[in-house]
Amino acid sequence: QNISKTKKSAKLEHPSLILTKSGVEKIKANLGSVPLFDRTLATVQAEVDAEILNGIEVPIPKDFSGGYTHERHKKNFLIIQKAGVLYQILDDEKYAKYVKDMLFQYAKIYPTLPVHPQTRSYARGKLFWQCLNDSNWLVYTSQAYDCVYNYLTEKERNYLEKDLFRPFAKFISVDNPQFYNRVHNHSTWGNVAVGMIALVMDDSKLLETALHGLKKDNIDPNAKDNDGGFIKKKGQKVGFLANLEEPFSPDGYYTEGPYYQRYAMYPFLVFAEALQNVKPELKIFEYKNGVLLKSINTLLNLTDTEGNFFPLNDGQKGMSYFSRELVSAVDIGYYYGGNQTDLLSIAKDQGEVLLDDTGLAVAIGIRDGLETPFVKKSINLTDGKNGDEGGVAILRAPGSKEDLTLVMKYSAHGLSHGHFDKLSFSYYEGGHEVLQDYGMSRYVNIQQKGGGNYLKENTTWAKQTIAHNTVIQNETSHFKGDFETGSSYHSEKYLFDVSNPKVQVISATESNAYPGTTLHRTQAIIKQDGFENPYLLDIVKINSETENQYDLPFYYFGQIMSTNFKYNVPEVLKPLGSKNGYQHLWNTGEGKSDSGNAKLSWFNKERFYTVTSVVSNEDELIFTRIGAKDPDFNLRNDPGFMIRKKNTKDTYFVNLVESHGHYDPVVEIATNAFSSVKNLKIAYSDEAYVAIQIETNSNDNLFLFSLKDSSNTSKHQIKIDNKTYEWIGAYKLTEINK
Amino acid sequence: QNISKTKKSAKLEHPSLILTKSGVEKIKANLGSVPLFDRTLATVQAEVDAEILNGIEVPIPKDFSGGYTHERHKKNFLIIQKAGVLYQILDDEKYAKYVKDMLFQYAKIYPTLPVHPQTRSYARGKLFWQCLNDSNWLVYTSQAYDCVYNYLTEKERNYLEKDLFRPFAKFISVDNPQFYNRVHNHSTWGNVAVGMIALVMDDSKLLETALHGLKKDNIDPNAKDNDGGFIKKKGQKVGFLANLEEPFSPDGYYTEGPYYQRYAMYPFLVFAEALQNVKPELKIFEYKNGVLLKSINTLLNLTDTEGNFFPLNDGQKGMSYFSRELVSAVDIGYYYGGNQTDLLSIAKDQGEVLLDDTGLAVAIGIRDGLETPFVKKSINLTDGKNGDEGGVAILRAPGSKEDLTLVMKYSAHGLSHGHFDKLSFSYYEGGHEVLQDYGMSRYVNIQQKGGGNYLKENTTWAKQTIAHNTVIQNETSHFKGDFETGSSYHSEKYLFDVSNPKVQVISATESNAYPGTTLHRTQAIIKQDGFENPYLLDIVKINSETENQYDLPFYYFGQIMSTNFKYNVPEVLKPLGSKNGYQHLWNTGEGKSDSGNAKLSWFNKERFYTVTSVVSNEDELIFTRIGAKDPDFNLRNDPGFMIRKKNTKDTYFVNLVESHGHYDPVVEIATNAFSSVKNLKIAYSDEAYVAIQIETNSNDNLFLFSLKDSSNTSKHQIKIDNKTYEWIGAYKLTEINK
Ligand SMILES: [Ca+2]
Ligand SMILES: [Ca+2]
Ligand SMILES: [Ca+2]
Ligand SMILES: [Mg+2]
Ligand SMILES: [Mg+2]
Ligand SMILES: [Mg+2]
Ligand SMILES: [Mg+2]
Repeated sequence: QNISKTKKSAKLEHPSLILTKSGVEKIKANLGSVPLFDRTLATVQAEVDAEILNGIEVPIPKDFSGGYTHERHKKNFLIIQKAGVLYQILDDEKYAKYVKDMLFQYAKIYPTLPVHPQTRSYARGKLFWQCLNDSNWLVYTSQAYDCVYNYLTEKERNYLEKDLFRPFAKFISVDNPQFYNRVHNHSTWGNVAVGMIALVMDDSKLLETALHGLKKDNIDPNAKDNDGGFIKKKGQKVGFLANLEEPFSPDGYYTEGPYYQRYAMYPFLVFAEALQNVKPELKIFEYKNGVLLKSINTLLNLTDTEGNFFPLNDGQKGMSYFSRELVSAVDIGYYYGGNQTDLLSIAKDQGEVLLDDTGLAVAIGIRDGLETPFVKKSINLTDGKNGDEGGVAILRAPGSKEDLTLVMKYSAHGLSHGHFDKLSFSYYEGGHEVLQDYGMSRYVNIQQKGGGNYLKENTTWAKQTIAHNTVIQNETSHFKGDFETGSSYHSEKYLFDVSNPKVQVISATESNAYPGTTLHRTQAIIKQDGFENPYLLDIVKINSETENQYDLPFYYFGQIMSTNFKYNVPEVLKPLGSKNGYQHLWNTGEGKSDSGNAKLSWFNKERFYTVTSVVSNEDELIFTRIGAKDPDFNLRNDPGFMIRKKNTKDTYFVNLVESHGHYDPVVEIATNAFSSVKNLKIAYSDEAYVAIQIETNSNDNLFLFSLKDSSNTSKHQIKIDNKTYEWIGAYKLTEINK
Repeated sequence: QNISKTKKSAKLEHPSLILTKSGVEKIKANLGSVPLFDRTLATVQAEVDAEILNGIEVPIPKDFSGGYTHERHKKNFLIIQKAGVLYQILDDEKYAKYVKDMLFQYAKIYPTLPVHPQTRSYARGKLFWQCLNDSNWLVYTSQAYDCVYNYLTEKERNYLEKDLFRPFAKFISVDNPQFYNRVHNHSTWGNVAVGMIALVMDDSKLLETALHGLKKDNIDPNAKDNDGGFIKKKGQKVGFLANLEEPFSPDGYYTEGPYYQRYAMYPFLVFAEALQNVKPELKIFEYKNGVLLKSINTLLNLTDTEGNFFPLNDGQKGMSYFSRELVSAVDIGYYYGGNQTDLLSIAKDQGEVLLDDTGLAVAIGIRDGLETPFVKKSINLTDGKNGDEGGVAILRAPGSKEDLTLVMKYSAHGLSHGHFDKLSFSYYEGGHEVLQDYGMSRYVNIQQKGGGNYLKENTTWAKQTIAHNTVIQNETSHFKGDFETGSSYHSEKYLFDVSNPKVQVISATESNAYPGTTLHRTQAIIKQDGFENPYLLDIVKINSETENQYDLPFYYFGQIMSTNFKYNVPEVLKPLGSKNGYQHLWNTGEGKSDSGNAKLSWFNKERFYTVTSVVSNEDELIFTRIGAKDPDFNLRNDPGFMIRKKNTKDTYFVNLVESHGHYDPVVEIATNAFSSVKNLKIAYSDEAYVAIQIETNSNDNLFLFSLKDSSNTSKHQIKIDNKTYEWIGAYKLTEINK
């Protein structure tokens, strides 16, 4: 489709962005008969009525996020959007008047408003400390303006457009090209802000700027943003469509990760909805094979069983599909994506809907009992514009109590919010983290903590490789922690195979993080007799041209129960290292094992967990706790366990992670409190194959794996202890021939 | 009443202990019409049927708690009791046969069974490592025997009594007087075990032994149990009635604390129920002014809003009124205590009932909608046989989200499970701990952790004064940590006044913990304008004959948000001290404040908290984390904050603890994230009075307190800044005269 062929609409109706004239009529006709819609309406009305009572406050901007002026302006745009919608649905002029009065107050101050006094941002806003938040404001306010458009006189509209909306749109675009003209969630917000107001004002030139960016920008090709991300690559396309084209993979994975995907979903989808309403000929929902609708399903799959997003890259834990952005996404996805009934069960869980045509459809679907469960399956999500820049694999398997979920990351860097965490993973049981990704070091909008912005520990700890459950060579982060280098590479998928629900496998390689060293990590979720739950088998094969130190940490939660090896705890705690994140780890104990296995059991949330690792008697077994060199107590003091191999070229890390048993302090009975693994060993290894032996008290199994040929039709054969093992396809789990 | 005047029953009916013939008939008549009873019955039947399918296992005893033989024998006595009940209710002989078969297996091994191979206990059992668990077995098994009594032939009964029950009862009593003949929860279990089997066998001599103990015991007066508790004081009464008489205060507070009260409730109440059924002339429920029934209400009041017991003394956190002992207690309390309808709401919450006359009555009450809310009020619970040995005060006040609850402990020592924690407190918001009592250092029945028994850190840390939110002098625990000394004293109530719901006060003194030093702690929960929630005002007045160091720690949870003072974090962590618990604390930072106030804010469970303390610029402000010198990782690594005053004779600690605001990671908006206290100071102090000034941005108040006269009619007058303040009664909260 040719996006530039947009027709000038005859005479634009209002509202037309997220509400339409016919939609409003349908809503009015259904009032009182669609419980979830009615309930949401009542809640929103109560909230807006309280604000109207409180009176309008439009303070002169001064504070960072978390501070009064920031939070007030944020509340204003959220409320004004709702007031606009209420005016349309309830026909009560007090809501229109509230919108008008507030817009007039903004129009009064805007022309003389200087740039925001806080200087931290690479693109300072006027109402807020960064253009990003100013753009948020305009995205919401445009909707309010659309709703009261016909309530205002032409003179009033002219005044608002001249003194507020046009200069506002100019400021976040022409005046801040380094913010507006790039591929980044910031720019998406900027583009959509301009695009939304362009649609209301029916200004096709401005809309063009939203869709395709500014023609000229003079951005310094070396300029970086606050997070160290490059502003713009040479020749890069910009504008809304480029922001839709590039960061989304064909699978709908957004390269910055789910936390920012969630954040970006709102502008993407609300603008898509508006474009679909005003410019249906653009067929925006079909763009890039329907990537926008696909991305909603992808995002819902990037959550644990409680709906919390996996905190990949910079992600604040606790953000979930209960956020307002996901309410929008689910409703819009249902309405424009062919009424997928499993979305209704998410919407029902969310307990609220959009007060527009899409929310009404969802609420009617729920009222009529159409919902089906949203089943999260094992899934592989490619990364990169063309889906060829690695990816994220999620393996899920039902356990005795809750689902076990592996999240394995072998993606591209993820723009400026990326972490140096090639081949890292996190592991969940239901909504609990078994082995965590630290997430980001930031308390979003909590003023006491650095104004609610990124803390320095996000760079010195959270982004560093040692903060992740992956291999660190020579105490140096992947790509030496260099953003530019890291952004040039991605890991490669070797195998993703979930065809057998009892043996689900993801395998990927990374050969650029440490030049001269290749990492090949294979992780399998295996359901096997003798184990209460599926277990995680984790095999990291390392080949290097040089001798190195390799560390593999596991960040668990809870209380250590037992080890099968001796260790010593120090009299004083010292940091484990001096840089690359190691300076933040206290060394809380060290041991060695001469049994061939290191076993650590811990207890958390009424359950027992054990990691069993193949180790040599030279391997150092190190206990850690996060929190050293943390002068502002910014870090969480979480524990970790690390296996360290020194002076090694080629080697393996082989680990098996079990969830087992239960202990409820009310009943005080511990069941299945011990690991089922009697012995774990590498039974065979050469260049092409590895075989892991998993011995329990009741059986003895081999996991056979082809390292060089991932085809599912190739035949393989190896000999172990003079027994021959044959298999077809990359892997096989089999009993030992006796 | 004269307990020894028990009549020999004509011919004892069976069942007669917890089930009665008429009760069984009533149950049968109601089957299918009382939902909660039917549901419980179905659950129990499914459980017992599964065990019958599994087959009987009576292994030779070998393991500690958490190990197979221990857990199997424990499961056996729980299941056999249920099987007996099912036989009575369902008239299905398979249940009687199961009971009979299992009893026969026990009777077969018992005569030749040696004492348990594990040697840790001061009173080793035969089936279990301690007589305590053997007694548990007999308490439950007696009930099973009662239920199948008439199913068995006289010959079978004779065999079981001769080879199993009589030698079993003799072993835990005559053969182990150090276990049986004392006042302690252990002995209660022993007495009840013997009493229950005596009732089934209709053996009044044995019953006499249960009620009044052994006549002779030859216990060494210096002998101690595993916890360091003395076995027996000279001249002490023993047996069930003495165990009822002594540890319960007239308010029904059990001196060992709620965790052990819960544990002891089962034998107390099940035996009382059986005595009431078989020997109603004893009027056991009227004993000591009905203390048994009173104690049920007391115990329910010793819980947070989610029903978890406050972990005073040795208490494992998470134990709650959902435990089976409390199901019994609530049902028995309802049935024998005059059908208190608020107990029904607890029973409904518990979701199960006893399968006996009491449970049926409760289930019928719930079916008929009779329940009323169980309202926990502010309450003062005296400790000591006569209620004159201090106590525990609980102050509760509704907050903006959940109740705020203060638990202040000024009790006697609490026998061998007591902690050295005079005038300590813990603080809750709903079911969350704001300032914690550490509880015990033990993982009950988790074998990996020291066989599930008390860990050495229970002595070196959990019992020590520094593990509590109270004053420690010269880094030495109260009573120098000596159990015998500590057991000789108790704190004294000065004032408990909750007549004004806006200013609730508990005040108590302690003059024996540190000879030559008097501690007087006053805590008030105050609801005041300018604060979102009620706050806790905490005033500790110290008078000493000598110069000392005083430490006052606060054990919070969560992440530090901010301080109003500068501090430094060390490059290496060192323990704060070398003994009395200090060896377990890492010193994680130190600061001083020259503003007169030290303010620490933290974030936990989506809420903000701030403690504001009056400090001099000499006071050391120390951050800590538990976990030093912990070679087996037995301790939880919880944070703390401590105020230290050095070289001081008389002084005050004055603190104000606020809960404020909210932050939800889904919404990412922080509300009321800052403390409302602008300044806190001691506006006046002399020997008789103290006045604390609490200044906020909107008001300025004084808390006036009389330290020497707690009468509520006395008149007081002091002058502050040439203004005169007059009040009646011990305290007054008033605005500053301006
Ligand atoms: Ca990360
Ligand atoms: Ca304690
Ligand atoms: Ca709780
Ligand atoms: Mg950024
Ligand atoms: Mg969760
Ligand atoms: Mg004991
Ligand atoms: Mg709980």
